[in-house]
Amino acid sequence: MNLTRRDLARLTAAAAFSRFPRLGRSQDSGRTIGYCIVGLGRISMQHFMPGARLSQYSKVTALVSGHRDKAERMAAEYHVPAKSIYSYEQYDAIAQNKDIDAVYIALPNSMHAEYSIRGARAGKHVLCEKPMCTTVADAEAMIEASRRAGKKLMIAYRCQYEPLHQRAIRMIRDGTLGKVQAIESSFGFNIGSGEWRTTRKLGGGGPLMDVGIYCLNACRYLTGEEPAELKGYSSVTDHDGRFAEVEEHLSWTMKFPSGAVAACNTSYGVNMPGFFRVHGAKGMLHMEPAFNYDGVRLSVHLEDKPPIDTLSGDRDPAQFPPQADHLAECIFQNKEPKTPGEEGLRDMKLMTAIYRSC
Amino acid sequence: MNLTRRDLARLTAAAAFSRFPRLGRSQDSGRTIGYCIVGLGRISMQHFMPGARLSQYSKVTALVSGHRDKAERMAAEYHVPAKSIYSYEQYDAIAQNKDIDAVYIALPNSMHAEYSIRGARAGKHVLCEKPMCTTVADAEAMIEASRRAGKKLMIAYRCQYEPLHQRAIRMIRDGTLGKVQAIESSFGFNIGSGEWRTTRKLGGGGPLMDVGIYCLNACRYLTGEEPAELKGYSSVTDHDGRFAEVEEHLSWTMKFPSGAVAACNTSYGVNMPGFFRVHGAKGMLHMEPAFNYDGVRLSVHLEDKPPIDTLSGDRDPAQFPPQADHLAECIFQNKEPKTPGEEGLRDMKLMTAIYRSC
Repeated sequence: MNLTRRDLARLTAAAAFSRFPRLGRSQDSGRTIGYCIVGLGRISMQHFMPGARLSQYSKVTALVSGHRDKAERMAAEYHVPAKSIYSYEQYDAIAQNKDIDAVYIALPNSMHAEYSIRGARAGKHVLCEKPMCTTVADAEAMIEASRRAGKKLMIAYRCQYEPLHQRAIRMIRDGTLGKVQAIESSFGFNIGSGEWRTTRKLGGGGPLMDVGIYCLNACRYLTGEEPAELKGYSSVTDHDGRFAEVEEHLSWTMKFPSGAVAACNTSYGVNMPGFFRVHGAKGMLHMEPAFNYDGVRLSVHLEDKPPIDTLSGDRDPAQFPPQADHLAECIFQNKEPKTPGEEGLRDMKLMTAIYRSC
Repeated sequence: MNLTRRDLARLTAAAAFSRFPRLGRSQDSGRTIGYCIVGLGRISMQHFMPGARLSQYSKVTALVSGHRDKAERMAAEYHVPAKSIYSYEQYDAIAQNKDIDAVYIALPNSMHAEYSIRGARAGKHVLCEKPMCTTVADAEAMIEASRRAGKKLMIAYRCQYEPLHQRAIRMIRDGTLGKVQAIESSFGFNIGSGEWRTTRKLGGGGPLMDVGIYCLNACRYLTGEEPAELKGYSSVTDHDGRFAEVEEHLSWTMKFPSGAVAACNTSYGVNMPGFFRVHGAKGMLHMEPAFNYDGVRLSVHLEDKPPIDTLSGDRDPAQFPPQADHLAECIFQNKEPKTPGEEGLRDMKLMTAIYRSC
């Protein structure tokens, strides 16, 4: 066997799919969900769109961008016809495009609500990047808009579709790790100046909204509980103009109904490897890198057993294709997504509570 | 070279000493500090006393114990004469024993204050285990008693005398790591039932007092700052009778004047490897195990440089001998110890504030 990196990627993706319930029909039926990509930034172009290519049931069929040149280049690459390239002004016209089943919202945070709601009103299912939006009221309006349209709303919590995260969750749910007692988790990066993420208007908040949300969401899906209480501090160490509108660092702690506690850090001022560590009565799970697009690694330390260290397969295939296909399956089978709008709303409420405590 | 483990231990200890200022006299002069060991528990018998044996200036010259048999066995091993074995009732008689320069207090937490104060009143220097005591008032009384006696009071913050911790501190102070932005630290273990540590009377508190104090103290010596604010949660997950009087888990966060933040966990319910991770503007220090007696390991990740991973030399020699000898040097040179009573008092005040916040 002489596998290329790409072969491996496809095999990993296939392995990921094998965990999903079969749809009872062959892939030959050719049934796919057409995604309209709203916002051609890094996550769309480098992750979601290549991921759709590796998926089983998802296809990029339309683009919305403010940069026609870039849109045309991407359209050529993904065989999107010119009629399916939209400017933001033309966005509502997607309603008339039968090739579009769903919109993928990958815009600055504060624009998520508007474009998700307009997507729903145009009769499309919505897959929206996290954070879902920037206020609890917006989150509720998004849920309501999709409900009225009779369409799905799913938040792109990609880690929940990644096999090693799912394995960690299973080891907790099936009792392998014993009762969860405490968690540590952090994620941060050193942000450039002038990024939209550092503005309150577009980012809606600082690193908590952007990367701390991974730690918060992980603490919730790992414990399977909702935090009962949260407290934190936000701060600035680098008075260089980047943090005039949003926090630089945020450190917070949470208490869950079972008594489990969590201590988390997030930052826009320092490259903080994404990790979580779950202390259970029978052992410890350590995932690091935990929230990267590629190469997440899970280490399992169970009492009286040799440690297990597992590296995920490859970049993207383990996260973006199953995420896109999960919504596709929910549409085909009229199921509620595993990470619906309500999941995003919970994080919005909790982040609001953390900010209030700071 | 064919070094045994013991040779290596001695070399490591010698290396540790090389960092101390020379005393300007040869070891041949035979000048040593005689320690009276107060309490023959694990830390005395397995760590402090063997450590004194490997030290340059420290010697065990007396014992205080409630178990005469055990005391006689240890006395035989350390060549302590029968006249220098005391029961707790006879403790004050150490005043008349010229072989005793200092007492090493290794009793349950709530007894530290009384035996330190009586030690000072007997005209002895005091090396007291951490936590220094269980209340701020006791800490102040200990400081006052030693001050009045004109004797040293040092708190046994062994990690501050360990070469890799000192190296981490130097890399922060000399700017190698860049400005400290955030810290994570945890330490905990799964306690047996019936231990004095789980009683309020003897322990004075739960894991925060006993092992969380390592994280708290580390955050202080790593940043070189005093936390401006602290918030936390204490909780119980295991309702099995062990945690009727003290917390099982405690998760807390701190904010330092520079804006640096810290997120910490401690526990008596789960084996939580002691670690700290310091995120600086130029890189990250990760120490794990950080607070063990043996084999602490420091990993250094600086931007654009290959990672450095360093394992400490060996058990004990790196911590207990330099700690005992530091007090000896302070006595010889009439210097203030690096970890005086005031250092312990600061932690007592901070732990009190954390408990209040919980």
